[in-house]
Amino acid sequence: MVTRTVDLRSDTVTKPTEAMRAAMANAEVDDDVLSYDPSALRLETEMAKVTGKEAALFVPSGTMGNLVSVLVHCNIRGSEVILGNNSHIHIYENGGISTIGGVHPRTVKNNDDGTMDIDLIEAAIRDPRGEIVYPTTRLICLENTQANCGGRCLSVEYTDKVGELAKKHGLKLHMDGARIFNASIALGVPVHRLLQAADSASVCLSKGLGAPVGSVIVGSKSFIAKARILRKTLGGGMRQVGVLCAAALVALHETVLKLEDDHKKTKMLAEGLNQIKGLRLNVAAVETNIIFFDVVEGAKITAEKLCKNLEQHGILVMQESPVRIRVVLHHQISESDVQYALSCFKQALTGRVQEENGN
Amino acid sequence: MVTRTVDLRSDTVTKPTEAMRAAMANAEVDDDVLSYDPSALRLETEMAKVTGKEAALFVPSGTMGNLVSVLVHCNIRGSEVILGNNSHIHIYENGGISTIGGVHPRTVKNNDDGTMDIDLIEAAIRDPRGEIVYPTTRLICLENTQANCGGRCLSVEYTDKVGELAKKHGLKLHMDGARIFNASIALGVPVHRLLQAADSASVCLSKGLGAPVGSVIVGSKSFIAKARILRKTLGGGMRQVGVLCAAALVALHETVLKLEDDHKKTKMLAEGLNQIKGLRLNVAAVETNIIFFDVVEGAKITAEKLCKNLEQHGILVMQESPVRIRVVLHHQISESDVQYALSCFKQALTGRVQEENGN
Amino acid sequence: MVTRTVDLRSDTVTKPTEAMRAAMANAEVDDDVLSYDPSALRLETEMAKVTGKEAALFVPSGTMGNLVSVLVHCNIRGSEVILGNNSHIHIYENGGISTIGGVHPRTVKNNDDGTMDIDLIEAAIRDPRGEIVYPTTRLICLENTQANCGGRCLSVEYTDKVGELAKKHGLKLHMDGARIFNASIALGVPVHRLLQAADSASVCLSKGLGAPVGSVIVGSKSFIAKARILRKTLGGGMRQVGVLCAAALVALHETVLKLEDDHKKTKMLAEGLNQIKGLRLNVAAVETNIIFFDVVEGAKITAEKLCKNLEQHGILVMQESPVRIRVVLHHQISESDVQYALSCFKQALTGRVQEENGN
Amino acid sequence: MVTRTVDLRSDTVTKPTEAMRAAMANAEVDDDVLSYDPSALRLETEMAKVTGKEAALFVPSGTMGNLVSVLVHCNIRGSEVILGNNSHIHIYENGGISTIGGVHPRTVKNNDDGTMDIDLIEAAIRDPRGEIVYPTTRLICLENTQANCGGRCLSVEYTDKVGELAKKHGLKLHMDGARIFNASIALGVPVHRLLQAADSASVCLSKGLGAPVGSVIVGSKSFIAKARILRKTLGGGMRQVGVLCAAALVALHETVLKLEDDHKKTKMLAEGLNQIKGLRLNVAAVETNIIFFDVVEGAKITAEKLCKNLEQHGILVMQESPVRIRVVLHHQISESDVQYALSCFKQALTGRVQEENGN
Repeated sequence: MVTRTVDLRSDTVTKPTEAMRAAMANAEVDDDVLSYDPSALRLETEMAKVTGKEAALFVPSGTMGNLVSVLVHCNIRGSEVILGNNSHIHIYENGGISTIGGVHPRTVKNNDDGTMDIDLIEAAIRDPRGEIVYPTTRLICLENTQANCGGRCLSVEYTDKVGELAKKHGLKLHMDGARIFNASIALGVPVHRLLQAADSASVCLSKGLGAPVGSVIVGSKSFIAKARILRKTLGGGMRQVGVLCAAALVALHETVLKLEDDHKKTKMLAEGLNQIKGLRLNVAAVETNIIFFDVVEGAKITAEKLCKNLEQHGILVMQESPVRIRVVLHHQISESDVQYALSCFKQALTGRVQEENGN
Repeated sequence: MVTRTVDLRSDTVTKPTEAMRAAMANAEVDDDVLSYDPSALRLETEMAKVTGKEAALFVPSGTMGNLVSVLVHCNIRGSEVILGNNSHIHIYENGGISTIGGVHPRTVKNNDDGTMDIDLIEAAIRDPRGEIVYPTTRLICLENTQANCGGRCLSVEYTDKVGELAKKHGLKLHMDGARIFNASIALGVPVHRLLQAADSASVCLSKGLGAPVGSVIVGSKSFIAKARILRKTLGGGMRQVGVLCAAALVALHETVLKLEDDHKKTKMLAEGLNQIKGLRLNVAAVETNIIFFDVVEGAKITAEKLCKNLEQHGILVMQESPVRIRVVLHHQISESDVQYALSCFKQALTGRVQEENGN
Repeated sequence: MVTRTVDLRSDTVTKPTEAMRAAMANAEVDDDVLSYDPSALRLETEMAKVTGKEAALFVPSGTMGNLVSVLVHCNIRGSEVILGNNSHIHIYENGGISTIGGVHPRTVKNNDDGTMDIDLIEAAIRDPRGEIVYPTTRLICLENTQANCGGRCLSVEYTDKVGELAKKHGLKLHMDGARIFNASIALGVPVHRLLQAADSASVCLSKGLGAPVGSVIVGSKSFIAKARILRKTLGGGMRQVGVLCAAALVALHETVLKLEDDHKKTKMLAEGLNQIKGLRLNVAAVETNIIFFDVVEGAKITAEKLCKNLEQHGILVMQESPVRIRVVLHHQISESDVQYALSCFKQALTGRVQEENGN
Repeated sequence: MVTRTVDLRSDTVTKPTEAMRAAMANAEVDDDVLSYDPSALRLETEMAKVTGKEAALFVPSGTMGNLVSVLVHCNIRGSEVILGNNSHIHIYENGGISTIGGVHPRTVKNNDDGTMDIDLIEAAIRDPRGEIVYPTTRLICLENTQANCGGRCLSVEYTDKVGELAKKHGLKLHMDGARIFNASIALGVPVHRLLQAADSASVCLSKGLGAPVGSVIVGSKSFIAKARILRKTLGGGMRQVGVLCAAALVALHETVLKLEDDHKKTKMLAEGLNQIKGLRLNVAAVETNIIFFDVVEGAKITAEKLCKNLEQHGILVMQESPVRIRVVLHHQISESDVQYALSCFKQALTGRVQEENGN
């Protein structure tokens, strides 16, 4: 019988805090499709400011945020987007930009640190003189932090360089900033500076920030006006959406302060895992709240069995491949949870029983 | 200065009740993308039962409900859907079934009562032998109540006939049941019976039922399994969505009881408007909570000026055409509001001042 | 045993003439994808002149001509086109503008003469203020002659009016001119005048003009430049296409002179059919080379049986509905063929044997 | 003044032979949309036999052949195709499978020999359990010869292995066989054996085979039946298309015998180029009729200037990048042309005048 659950599958699993629940219960609302919901307006205004953009729009998910953004930039038939071969948009969003939007993706290899080589990006941009056989490149997408590369941060310098490249070729730059606040904290750089070179960004409120539902996309007024229409087309226009936005505002004001702690606890967990025989990871690569690690060949247990074993002790993780496992931390994982998780890992991999630290 | 507001633009403008707010604050939730949110599960289970279908799925809006439903039924390239030329899907959903889904719409004339002639529907079904030049008909869509025809109800008999026609030709039948509860109350027929012939339906919780956000689509298990994937593709998968579903459950249990009153107040308003010189409407056609009426030629004031005049007195309505106006009632419009609205209409159209009844 | 065949199914069934065959054999050609094929260039230059447009492009079919044209005008996601409910694009082109192009069709009723009421067209244009729920109207399509209305001609006056309406609302006008040469001959108005108000047109060379393969689309230089790219995307870019264009040039110069005769023979056939008990048609409505007629209730034979009976005598026609039949004439149908066909119709419907006139 | 032209841009530039021209002039034809054109039927029957498939379909271009094939295999919304990052479909077909067909491409690195590593292909296949966030892999595409890798041949063994992998995962395998006859000759393996593992293939008749226009797709009867409909949707259905098919039949019977010679001349040219200081190429990699070579740093002249210089002497080549040039041979390039071309290359790169061999 599981007596304790430590859910490390994703930072999307957080439960709304009391403050968020109170905010929902007291939210000032209106029909956000017919007019403007005041709480939505407040959140959007604040997010525009935080991100240094003219305007913002609440959407039900990060997937819709990215889909709407890519489709607005690529609103003409025959468009191509350049993005990382390991990016969330390419791997985890059902291929929606093509299957729903008819946008052709051209991938560039993601390095281990989440970057794509600038010269590879430039080589992927289609020569406009070949328009008779080439789709038209209109957009470059980056992701910060890059989830599938272990939550690595893209630096301001790198992002600015990609922005310059985009400008030089008349392209737009979209940032999948699902975890841009994590990057901001880890790099010590304000969010608006990290997004300075981006024409648009999607920012998730229901990951590390812990809001129950929603993302926000930001950009120019004209971009957001088009995004608002497309959000409606997709069915993302919601009525008294202020109940969600009010909770998101709490997340934006309160949870953001806990991200630094999340990163510390993640580092602690990474260092602990690194001590365990049978696991392999690069502790130096753990920059934010995500850890990828491998179960080495010759370990006492396979990754699959390890996951099952952990589950029996209430530790939920995400298996990524036959050998790779992902864990993600968030503000509702305590230091004690980390210790408990470590003890379960050790037991599973070494068989040695270990005193649980308690909750 | 406006001292009183009576918002008759739509039944989407309702504010969540105290009970709904409390439900949101106390909702049991989980990550509905990774696992199942318990409140979402509860709502979906209950909606499946109420509608007599195997399974259900919460979606952020009626537009997404219809879009997902049409696209699941028409998941093969080259599909055509038959639907009313005055249906919500055809007129008010951005053409998303084509522009996002590549589905070809074939319209059949909506009669004043919201029906389409059965023989016209049958004539619109493509002969499969002409497949080399014809798209393939896969779906018929009905709408109950039919908003743009003044909230008219489709009878069980009619719906069953269309269902038989669909079966005969191997087609699916989708019901846009945004206001199916209004139809159920007005006809005295349970929702599940009204939907018996339908393979799928979308049902709105944030219209007459007054939930802050959301619709539910219902159908077979296999249909809902496909719909769940497509909802994710479109970005309608939400995390701790139980906060919305908990409010929706309150709507389903409590507000539904008030619909009959809404219809009575609507009838009262319709009869009052019918007494006012300069307005024309068919009182007999007012079956639920929607009234369409025309400002006649020769009236003291045009429809456009009438709307502005009413707005100054806090009465919000929807202008549909140079001569036509729509009003919609809901549980937060009181009898007193109806009397106040009528007095404002009279004053605007006849110039006679009249004592206000309400508070 | 069939000893004589009179193929009245369509004017697409013509065989290339000796002159066309010689032209193909001697055509000057080049790779029309890499450079420009000289024969293609010659045909396109001439077609641009005949139609009064800046530029032209050869395409493998009328369907591709219309598809490319609609998609170029509606190259932005979220576009809507207004077109006749009985138009070839809507009924006979597989719904490609939606299923391939994601364009939302909005139909307006075609009158018996092929027109749509101007005020109905105007009413169908979306109010740009409703952009949050409406697709954006970008294009109106006309068809001249209107095949499915019996080859009726649209007058210059009518077309000009629709053109004015389009301009007033910032829309484009596309003419499906598959049989625009028939309209030109019947109306005594040059093709360029009939197309003056149109921003683009598709003109078929393999219908009445008798070329083996191909249509041409015409429009502004910028329109054709975009169309050339889209033609390549769809796979309509061909290599030494001059072999087809050389034949088409012959059609343009020689067969066009025979269209007047085609219309006379069609009228003769129509008048003959009108004399036959059991058939009903409107002779006055036969303006070009197409006849629709009905087998009346109470006739000796059903439409279906009539078609089979005729086929046994080598007369091929097209059944359009349980009661309706279509016949189309072209330059390879002689007066003698018309007489022979009439004698077969009479025999089938009246049972009286009749001497055959021709061979 | 150019006195001699040697067009090495592509094998698409061939002019129809006298035999092809005669065949066009004498082709037996019919309306291939309404019925079946006898010459088209003959070509399709023969191509089905040569490729070892049940059925075949003539299409106006290789691009349409691939587009139709991919879209038929991926006819359900949400499909993904695995293909080479250097494949013709991904690079040179306007992204049509996405922008027109809504299919999501997932690329795997092409090795220098045109293959993709089998384990990388397998790793790219989506796990069906992740369907909530993954598109559904339905198809793998290969290309033989692989144009952009220098006309390299895929062996039977390799193709069979990919076919086994596809079967294991329930996927289809499509072969872009634009130059499959070149592969067949170079490998000494019949075409049908090279295609044995493929569910479908497109084969070009207007490249090395020298037909003026057209490709053929082959596959099962059910595949071709669906392809016929989609060809019509795209506008690739043509009327008396037999005029093109008759020429293609000549190509199939006569030109195919010259491919071996083409390869020899290509080898000769490659060896000659390899002797020239300033050029770099891998002669061993020249397997068919395509050569890629680089202008080395420090050469007397840049690639761009070399191309211009050659053009002045009537030698047309294709510049692929700032340093890379492509030449392609075909049956209308003689040994003398090769010698002349080599002398022009030498002169341009070394400045030494050289006696021209040919006329």
